[in-house]
Amino acid sequence: MDIAVNTTNPETLVADLAREGRKAQAVLSRMSDADRASALHSAAAALREDRKTILAANADDIAAGEASGLTGAMLDRLRLDTDRLAAIADAVDSVADLPTPVGQVISRDERPNGLVIERVRIPIGLIGIIYESRPNVTADAAALCLKSGNAALLRGGSEAVRSNRAIEAAFARGLESAGVPAAAIQLMPTQDRAAVGAMLKAAGLIDMIVPRGGKGLVARVQADARVPVLAHLDGICHTYVHSAADPVKARALAVNAKMRRTGICGAMETLLIDTAFPEAAELVADVIDAGCEVRGDERAQKLDSRIKPATDEDWDTEYLDAILSVAMVDGIDEALAHISAHSSGHTDVIVTEDAGAEDRFLKEVDSAIVMTNASSQFADGGEFGLGAEIGIATGRLHARGPVALEGLTTYKWLVRGTGQTRP
Amino acid sequence: MDIAVNTTNPETLVADLAREGRKAQAVLSRMSDADRASALHSAAAALREDRKTILAANADDIAAGEASGLTGAMLDRLRLDTDRLAAIADAVDSVADLPTPVGQVISRDERPNGLVIERVRIPIGLIGIIYESRPNVTADAAALCLKSGNAALLRGGSEAVRSNRAIEAAFARGLESAGVPAAAIQLMPTQDRAAVGAMLKAAGLIDMIVPRGGKGLVARVQADARVPVLAHLDGICHTYVHSAADPVKARALAVNAKMRRTGICGAMETLLIDTAFPEAAELVADVIDAGCEVRGDERAQKLDSRIKPATDEDWDTEYLDAILSVAMVDGIDEALAHISAHSSGHTDVIVTEDAGAEDRFLKEVDSAIVMTNASSQFADGGEFGLGAEIGIATGRLHARGPVALEGLTTYKWLVRGTGQTRP
Repeated sequence: MDIAVNTTNPETLVADLAREGRKAQAVLSRMSDADRASALHSAAAALREDRKTILAANADDIAAGEASGLTGAMLDRLRLDTDRLAAIADAVDSVADLPTPVGQVISRDERPNGLVIERVRIPIGLIGIIYESRPNVTADAAALCLKSGNAALLRGGSEAVRSNRAIEAAFARGLESAGVPAAAIQLMPTQDRAAVGAMLKAAGLIDMIVPRGGKGLVARVQADARVPVLAHLDGICHTYVHSAADPVKARALAVNAKMRRTGICGAMETLLIDTAFPEAAELVADVIDAGCEVRGDERAQKLDSRIKPATDEDWDTEYLDAILSVAMVDGIDEALAHISAHSSGHTDVIVTEDAGAEDRFLKEVDSAIVMTNASSQFADGGEFGLGAEIGIATGRLHARGPVALEGLTTYKWLVRGTGQTRP
Repeated sequence: MDIAVNTTNPETLVADLAREGRKAQAVLSRMSDADRASALHSAAAALREDRKTILAANADDIAAGEASGLTGAMLDRLRLDTDRLAAIADAVDSVADLPTPVGQVISRDERPNGLVIERVRIPIGLIGIIYESRPNVTADAAALCLKSGNAALLRGGSEAVRSNRAIEAAFARGLESAGVPAAAIQLMPTQDRAAVGAMLKAAGLIDMIVPRGGKGLVARVQADARVPVLAHLDGICHTYVHSAADPVKARALAVNAKMRRTGICGAMETLLIDTAFPEAAELVADVIDAGCEVRGDERAQKLDSRIKPATDEDWDTEYLDAILSVAMVDGIDEALAHISAHSSGHTDVIVTEDAGAEDRFLKEVDSAIVMTNASSQFADGGEFGLGAEIGIATGRLHARGPVALEGLTTYKWLVRGTGQTRP
């Protein structure tokens, strides 16, 4: 890039990057899927070739992070090693081999006047990705955007800047060797926060922004963006154990939904137990015995002496930790009302053997993902068979739940005539 | 409605209306499609029953409009008569009988672990419609929203306020008699412009806003909205007459695309003529003879002495009138470049008998609707077989081109398990 970072203001910089990105996207969108796939395979190969450079850059990031006092968890998210880097390159190869939605005919109709009308999937255009410390996002997001024919403008966290630059350099070299303009995937050349602001305002230049990171980042992006945002702010996921739940399944599901990994957005944060469910005390004891702090409403507190009192705030809190709020509910109506009031619209689950309760829950819960008799931790594009995901969205338009390649496309209408004029 | 309009500020008013609307929507979304359809039929019947009241209210609007100096075109948009009102009621009946997208299974997958994963179409929620002088929008938009299981908050133009209130009163009475809460369709009870501002900012309360009206309205909505907007600002539609165009078809299509109705968004505004097309002069003469003013670039001016010179501005102007800009282009590359630079992304057309040129145009033009050998005036939900449309969108996300019932839905993921925990 020969864009003069130091001498331009953030709006000009973003406009320049967007223009280059959009030009590259026009080239990408004329390539075949096979050509886009082989460009991704050469990007994966370049990541492997540049292994030493990337790991050295990452070591510098880690050293700087240690010096500036990053927490152990942050350093762990930042750290790459041979295995993690191999996994990043493998993931790029996997995305390359996914079936593409681009070119798919969504609908086709031949009108009485002979017009043939099709809706065909096309790339969205230029996608902005704003993320924090995980350097793997650089390659993952780039691969998903490129596979779906989109260009990407990436802005990673300052703590990962050296790793991200090394990964982007390798990725871009791989793409170029396969005939894709390097500007198809651009990393913001400055860590100036004003450039993030300029991305958020760049309606018409950037078509969609996907924030990847903590709630602070997502909230800022959602508050300031004039560009459409695909994101979820919270994952306040509920599991409702219905009166007709199988106790064995319910107990296993509760422990798994909360404790398998407590820090992911699909982790259960609130457990609703029907007062008619016979093994409520055992259920809660299982979760506590697995190492979880439980905060209960008045009725739940009676189940186990180790339960702490919940405050009103608990019902609206995403702990992302080994903490669980538990409320007792009198039947499915009360469960549905609680979920309607407190769910963040991410993933909510019912455990029941009763088909009527199951149907009603599936129909009435208005979240992006509604599950029966399964762990909310399955809320993931890979588990849904989508191959990979760019993120999970809780908005109502365009795409919801796990968003993968299809969510990175839009469509256009193709109308083929033979000279028809409109009467 | 017992909402105290005079004593609340616009934000509180919109929040109150939205809360009532969302409650009604929850009821709607639990009804069957057959029940929603019969509610619409009873709304249509109520519109017919209230014929005299509605026409009297409209006569008052017309009288007020004449007194305040509305133009003839504006009065014509505002005016209802027995036939127009019958057509409005008939349109509600037609929408009632359209196939519903709600409940449609978009995809289904059974995972190796036994989870059955479906994506199912659901209503979006509460749709805001902001429109100008046409009172038919009150019933049309209400019917489309209700048929797709959505509630609507309508804000019509001040000049039509009496007509809109009478139509909404009849519509709501019809719905209520069929068991739908009247708040499913609410008309903003004040014409205070600050209430429009409050609608535009009501992210999380209103799920989507559709502006229906002139460019000034749409531009304001797009500039100020924090709620997602489905709209098109301009319809700068091109027709490119390729060297291999059939001259007979080309001449008929040009006249129809421009002159059938000059004031609609799908009307051609710019004609691109290939320098290798043999009947350029005849083509332009046909358009001029049909009563159109033609403004041409230097080469086009040589085709006919009646052509006026075009300025740079003409290529970016939506005339919505019997005016056409004409540019000569050397081949398809130049045509594609002109369209890429000046199209508003609404509808662009190629006229050609050459399959290669046709394919390339369909692939490379990035507009919501791309046509071959047909009049751009076909850009319409009814002509596309969608039954009716809420509007035409030129944005890239969610829905593009003519937006009908499907564009008023979103989806959720339903995951059915048998006790699966995630490893």
